[in-house]
Amino acid sequence: MKNPLYQKQLNVVSKKTGLPPGSLVYVGDTTTSPTTISEIHYNSHQYNENIVPNLSESLLFSTKLDGVTWVRVCGLSDIKTIQEIGEQLHIHPLTLEDILNTNQRPKVEVFDQYIYIVLKKISNISDSLHVEYDQLSIILGNHYVITYEETADNHFDKVKSRVQKGTGLIRKLNADYLAYALIDSIVDQYFHLQESIDDYIETLEDELLFAPSHETLNSIHHLKREMIFLRKAISSNSELMTILLREDSSLITPDVKVYYRDVLDHAIRLHDSIDTYRELISGMLNIYLSVLSNKTNEVMRILTVFASIFIPLTFIAGIYGMNFDYMPELRWKWSYPLLWLFFIVIIIILLLFFRKKKWI
Amino acid sequence: MKNPLYQKQLNVVSKKTGLPPGSLVYVGDTTTSPTTISEIHYNSHQYNENIVPNLSESLLFSTKLDGVTWVRVCGLSDIKTIQEIGEQLHIHPLTLEDILNTNQRPKVEVFDQYIYIVLKKISNISDSLHVEYDQLSIILGNHYVITYEETADNHFDKVKSRVQKGTGLIRKLNADYLAYALIDSIVDQYFHLQESIDDYIETLEDELLFAPSHETLNSIHHLKREMIFLRKAISSNSELMTILLREDSSLITPDVKVYYRDVLDHAIRLHDSIDTYRELISGMLNIYLSVLSNKTNEVMRILTVFASIFIPLTFIAGIYGMNFDYMPELRWKWSYPLLWLFFIVIIIILLLFFRKKKWI
Amino acid sequence: MKNPLYQKQLNVVSKKTGLPPGSLVYVGDTTTSPTTISEIHYNSHQYNENIVPNLSESLLFSTKLDGVTWVRVCGLSDIKTIQEIGEQLHIHPLTLEDILNTNQRPKVEVFDQYIYIVLKKISNISDSLHVEYDQLSIILGNHYVITYEETADNHFDKVKSRVQKGTGLIRKLNADYLAYALIDSIVDQYFHLQESIDDYIETLEDELLFAPSHETLNSIHHLKREMIFLRKAISSNSELMTILLREDSSLITPDVKVYYRDVLDHAIRLHDSIDTYRELISGMLNIYLSVLSNKTNEVMRILTVFASIFIPLTFIAGIYGMNFDYMPELRWKWSYPLLWLFFIVIIIILLLFFRKKKWI
Amino acid sequence: MKNPLYQKQLNVVSKKTGLPPGSLVYVGDTTTSPTTISEIHYNSHQYNENIVPNLSESLLFSTKLDGVTWVRVCGLSDIKTIQEIGEQLHIHPLTLEDILNTNQRPKVEVFDQYIYIVLKKISNISDSLHVEYDQLSIILGNHYVITYEETADNHFDKVKSRVQKGTGLIRKLNADYLAYALIDSIVDQYFHLQESIDDYIETLEDELLFAPSHETLNSIHHLKREMIFLRKAISSNSELMTILLREDSSLITPDVKVYYRDVLDHAIRLHDSIDTYRELISGMLNIYLSVLSNKTNEVMRILTVFASIFIPLTFIAGIYGMNFDYMPELRWKWSYPLLWLFFIVIIIILLLFFRKKKWI
Amino acid sequence: MKNPLYQKQLNVVSKKTGLPPGSLVYVGDTTTSPTTISEIHYNSHQYNENIVPNLSESLLFSTKLDGVTWVRVCGLSDIKTIQEIGEQLHIHPLTLEDILNTNQRPKVEVFDQYIYIVLKKISNISDSLHVEYDQLSIILGNHYVITYEETADNHFDKVKSRVQKGTGLIRKLNADYLAYALIDSIVDQYFHLQESIDDYIETLEDELLFAPSHETLNSIHHLKREMIFLRKAISSNSELMTILLREDSSLITPDVKVYYRDVLDHAIRLHDSIDTYRELISGMLNIYLSVLSNKTNEVMRILTVFASIFIPLTFIAGIYGMNFDYMPELRWKWSYPLLWLFFIVIIIILLLFFRKKKWI
Repeated sequence: MKNPLYQKQLNVVSKKTGLPPGSLVYVGDTTTSPTTISEIHYNSHQYNENIVPNLSESLLFSTKLDGVTWVRVCGLSDIKTIQEIGEQLHIHPLTLEDILNTNQRPKVEVFDQYIYIVLKKISNISDSLHVEYDQLSIILGNHYVITYEETADNHFDKVKSRVQKGTGLIRKLNADYLAYALIDSIVDQYFHLQESIDDYIETLEDELLFAPSHETLNSIHHLKREMIFLRKAISSNSELMTILLREDSSLITPDVKVYYRDVLDHAIRLHDSIDTYRELISGMLNIYLSVLSNKTNEVMRILTVFASIFIPLTFIAGIYGMNFDYMPELRWKWSYPLLWLFFIVIIIILLLFFRKKKWI
Repeated sequence: MKNPLYQKQLNVVSKKTGLPPGSLVYVGDTTTSPTTISEIHYNSHQYNENIVPNLSESLLFSTKLDGVTWVRVCGLSDIKTIQEIGEQLHIHPLTLEDILNTNQRPKVEVFDQYIYIVLKKISNISDSLHVEYDQLSIILGNHYVITYEETADNHFDKVKSRVQKGTGLIRKLNADYLAYALIDSIVDQYFHLQESIDDYIETLEDELLFAPSHETLNSIHHLKREMIFLRKAISSNSELMTILLREDSSLITPDVKVYYRDVLDHAIRLHDSIDTYRELISGMLNIYLSVLSNKTNEVMRILTVFASIFIPLTFIAGIYGMNFDYMPELRWKWSYPLLWLFFIVIIIILLLFFRKKKWI
Repeated sequence: MKNPLYQKQLNVVSKKTGLPPGSLVYVGDTTTSPTTISEIHYNSHQYNENIVPNLSESLLFSTKLDGVTWVRVCGLSDIKTIQEIGEQLHIHPLTLEDILNTNQRPKVEVFDQYIYIVLKKISNISDSLHVEYDQLSIILGNHYVITYEETADNHFDKVKSRVQKGTGLIRKLNADYLAYALIDSIVDQYFHLQESIDDYIETLEDELLFAPSHETLNSIHHLKREMIFLRKAISSNSELMTILLREDSSLITPDVKVYYRDVLDHAIRLHDSIDTYRELISGMLNIYLSVLSNKTNEVMRILTVFASIFIPLTFIAGIYGMNFDYMPELRWKWSYPLLWLFFIVIIIILLLFFRKKKWI
Repeated sequence: MKNPLYQKQLNVVSKKTGLPPGSLVYVGDTTTSPTTISEIHYNSHQYNENIVPNLSESLLFSTKLDGVTWVRVCGLSDIKTIQEIGEQLHIHPLTLEDILNTNQRPKVEVFDQYIYIVLKKISNISDSLHVEYDQLSIILGNHYVITYEETADNHFDKVKSRVQKGTGLIRKLNADYLAYALIDSIVDQYFHLQESIDDYIETLEDELLFAPSHETLNSIHHLKREMIFLRKAISSNSELMTILLREDSSLITPDVKVYYRDVLDHAIRLHDSIDTYRELISGMLNIYLSVLSNKTNEVMRILTVFASIFIPLTFIAGIYGMNFDYMPELRWKWSYPLLWLFFIVIIIILLLFFRKKKWI
Repeated sequence: MKNPLYQKQLNVVSKKTGLPPGSLVYVGDTTTSPTTISEIHYNSHQYNENIVPNLSESLLFSTKLDGVTWVRVCGLSDIKTIQEIGEQLHIHPLTLEDILNTNQRPKVEVFDQYIYIVLKKISNISDSLHVEYDQLSIILGNHYVITYEETADNHFDKVKSRVQKGTGLIRKLNADYLAYALIDSIVDQYFHLQESIDDYIETLEDELLFAPSHETLNSIHHLKREMIFLRKAISSNSELMTILLREDSSLITPDVKVYYRDVLDHAIRLHDSIDTYRELISGMLNIYLSVLSNKTNEVMRILTVFASIFIPLTFIAGIYGMNFDYMPELRWKWSYPLLWLFFIVIIIILLLFFRKKKWI
């Protein structure tokens, strides 16, 4: 059982052994995700997007431009480049370390020059609801946002297209609104997950009440485990939003704070849902035990009815199968039919008895 | 299993995909509830009620009148009209979005010009205590209250008739008192529900202790689930009242605050009751398991008594059914009656043994 | 299952339907408790007690007298009188409503002119520890205390006799001390209840460990339920005292506050006890299940011992009861005694086996 | 079941019925503990100890002496003397009442002239870990400490001998250090108890996993109950120390506060331990149930193996014991040995089947 | 069962009996760990390490040098030396006592001259995940750090080598950074432990779901117990870091505080993990019970199928084994084959019945 939130644990420890704090080591898979840096610059009347091979050419350092610059760093294997960006923007070494060590808890750290936000985004959901998480780091500066993603996926495409088309307020407001839009799209992802869970639990409950099996128990157990991790991820997210709202940084303007409050609201609603799931799942385990007890009870009742009826009768039959010389009943003509009558009466009495006990 | 509080989840996500925040989309059923707007204007000496086809004719914008204007918007499918009202009254886009997205958690948001309140009202209770919820949005301004209801039902008829007849204080006080009266009528609804639950639990407890069945387990499970959702709804309500009382908005006067405190009191009492139900229900599951164990125990006792008495006797009978040539007992005249005596003694001894163990 | 704290729920809702808040409706049984008003006036050197037919003659409005006036209103069916008192003393309409609606949670409300205190007093304890509660409302003013009791019982006789005889400080201090004495006598009642519970649990534990039955389970379940309600009542009481101590009302002097702190102490001790009971009771349910499992295990062992010994033997006997023509053993002279020997050896071996397993 | 912390409950209620608050009644056993008062006076260079027959001769009232006076009151039956001390030192009547009512919760009350501390000390531990508690009241004044003990035992001998010999700081510091030393010795007592519990639980766990019996269940239940009471006692103690440290009384100097903090540390550690015990014990009940289930499962397996093998065989044997005239098999010469072969094959197949299921 | 965090409990009590607080007694094993003192002095351009036979020669008291001095005390049996160091550095007697009493809870105490930190470090992990803990005391002064270790192990080798080689910031910053580096290395240790637990739980879960045995139960129980202790250790650690960050001591500079915050983050993540483990383990016990119930159910089904089929048939066979003179069926030629047909039909019907019930 690996905690999917901190699944690269092992790598960290072994890779970082003996290094001073602040040493930059990427703990993920270095082969699969080459580092690419792209840059989007926009203001209310223009929009530019380009791949940045060399950071010194970045618009980030161009003082002539106004507007917002969004630097997307996808893939974290190229430590050198990441370190360069960090140095040029005066990012604290510990922040850089946290960006690369993708086992962070979601958190917010407010520095003088920037706000550092770590989030867990959902990278994959399997059929059996096994969820995989990626780390997303956001650095929100005065007129820029830098995002560090573990792999290049299409997750921010909708936000990007909104920027490109200028729908809504996004091009009218500053970098804090862009950061909000990004975080909001992450939280929305969890709502999709929630729908999958809803369906899964519905199926499981039906199975549980009408045809429980050992498989059902496994499913409940696995679901329970996923909920434990999911809850950690979500509760960290809402905690993070709370801190962000409480902080008095000039980087987030009051006008935009109301949007952050909206995200917090969503995160709390998600948290509520997960709590509900946990209660439902813990109830399901009890139901499973009850249903099982019920079934054992039923099995026992069947056995008892059969055994209690036929064991005494067999005894009677056994008696008249004995070979004693002097057994006068054996000679009487009506013994056999009378015995049958006796058998039938016994059976009826016992059946009535069990019927009264509601066993049959 | 769908969470009845947020049952339109799926719609939101699919309908809102790719839209910027603040985009207005109604997530409910658009066909069933056409939007109708009615307006009630009153002060201590007069009362007017009329359907408003065009909002620009609303009394809301008439500066000549004093008194309170209550605008009722029933049905949320006509987004355009709702947006117009919003713009004319300077309502924040996020508030409008929340009004239409009927999956909100009950909450209070205090803006400069108005207070925005979201509540869950009970729209339907089925026989098996399945509760359905509707969202009610209240905007409390300086001299007006706007309510947004998902469907037009007769829920506010009593409040309306009080305004119309001028009973109590309602026409003497301002819009904050009207908002209180509306919220109070929502909370009262929950008390009705509570009575139904009281009766249902009483029935269930009797069933549980005297004739538990698989059906009982299902009922407990369903009740438990309803309680989880109900508790969320109620605890959000009382949380909301607490926030409303704490807020220092000039829109609620100290004289009226004492009434809000009264509603808070009711909400807390409801919350207490739900907690009590939860404890009772969780106790019931344990009782169910115990009763079931008890029944299995009883079944086993019956089986054991029958089997333990007759299996040994059958063995004895079997012995004298053997066909060995040299079995001297078979020839003795008193063997058979003596064996019967032996059987009876054995039976009596075992019956006494089981009686001593209190199994029969 | 009715919550005994709020047992008149149904009445409230049906009686109050459609009335504005502040409407006075008594929700209890109107026939059984006629309203009687008596008045006790005392100061350090004199004591008067009289029935007040007409409140305008009350000493409460006599400005010439110094000392404390205690007005006892027993029975709440005469709404008109209660409303008159309220108006004459400028009591808030919501307070009057709460006095009559006897389903309040215990609470404290501090107004400028008076402090309003609602308590639950124990009106009856049945043999099976079913507790019934009455509501007691106390209004503590500058030189007066008004108590509203649902029925006229002898509960305050001791306090009254203390006032009459002038024992202790009661006649030397102001109305706040009288209110304290009344609350203290209510809390003392709960200690009496606690003793009954102590005894009941002791009996139940013995029964549980030595002779558990279905009846025991019922008792545990009922006790558990009573504890849930009792705990609510007591925790509300101690919460109430905390609020009373925190409030900075001039109506309670610092000298008397130390007495209120003493009552708080008692309430906390009671709360501790109830928590202890709850833990004990929840443990008892587990014990019950364990004891039951133990008993089932024992039943099974007996069955297994009997069946495992005699079923194989019966099979052997069955073999030699077969009627094959060629069964040489049947002809040997020592077959029968040797078989008996075999039987006995088998029985001994199995008995030793079961003894080793500690089943017999 | 009596709560050993408040075991004299019954006495209080019956003895105090009808008395005003502040009435002094000793609720314990009046016959066994006569009141003796001894007095120890010391400063850095001298030490006096004497029995005080008459309090007016006490050094407490001698203004000429500097140093600390420790008055030990052992046995609380002599109410009159205790009242005299109280009056002479201006002790609040409620404090005196609490000293005599030995059912107090551990608590701290800070008055202007003194600090009143109530503690539970362990008076006896039985073999089965049944713990009895006594109440210890400490009054810490400016230059004196008064201790009220229920019985005269040797519990404070070590502290006394330290004072006498002048080891450590005790004679160099003021009364607050003496009070600390006394409280510390009480807390140390609990550590001794903790060791006994450690050993007891270790024994119980071994018994549980290797030879559980009904006795084990009883022991777990009793231990659990003791833990409930012990936890209350200890958590009250640590709560008390927290309050003492928070209070800004001039009676405890900052230099000595660091020692009180040390005691708090010990109390928290004890509290941690008890929590650990509770978790262990609650786990043990689950283990017990599992072990029991395991045993029942084993019993059932044995029964099933025996019955499933021999019942079908007996049926076969029964067939050939039938007396039909036309049963050709009966006549064949090899029928009997072939049938034995068949029996053996069946037995082997079933044994392999059960072996595969790991039942044997 | 000994709590491994406070395993030397017994020693303390017996060794300290009768001593005044502040008496220095080492409660651990005095024979195994002789006290050795080594000293490392460094600043940004130099590094010295030497064994200190006599503390008065220590660089700690040399006022001429700037830089940081790290004094390592390994083995706590030489009380005299430890007392000397304490006196020379004005360490409070209670701190010295706590250093020697290795049963402390992890804690922070801030004094004017130094900060005293107690941590639990992992000294050994057995194969069955039994963890042993050692106490580490750190005294952080203005330009020095003193560490007290119970035994001399290689735990700080990495930190030492970093100091020696001057990697990272360690030689550029003050003593507070050194203390951070030491604490960080302790916390890292717990991550290693966490990986072992991950693997262990994974194995256990597989065993549980596919081949549960009594051994599995034992393992779960032991794991649960270890988690209880581990959680205490870790939660104390994170609590400690919180206090350290909150404290406003000039000994920790703001620049270094960010590193302490990083350690806090790690500690919280560890705490999260342990909580997750606890939930998983508590779920595992339930699964175990369910799996067991399932198995018992299966055993019962097999028994019931065998018994319900063959007991009635045996009865039929028994009938025709009776020796009545007048049993006409016995004479009919087709009786026997017809009876076989009857047997087979019965068997098929019952098999279909059980198949329908999904028992076979």
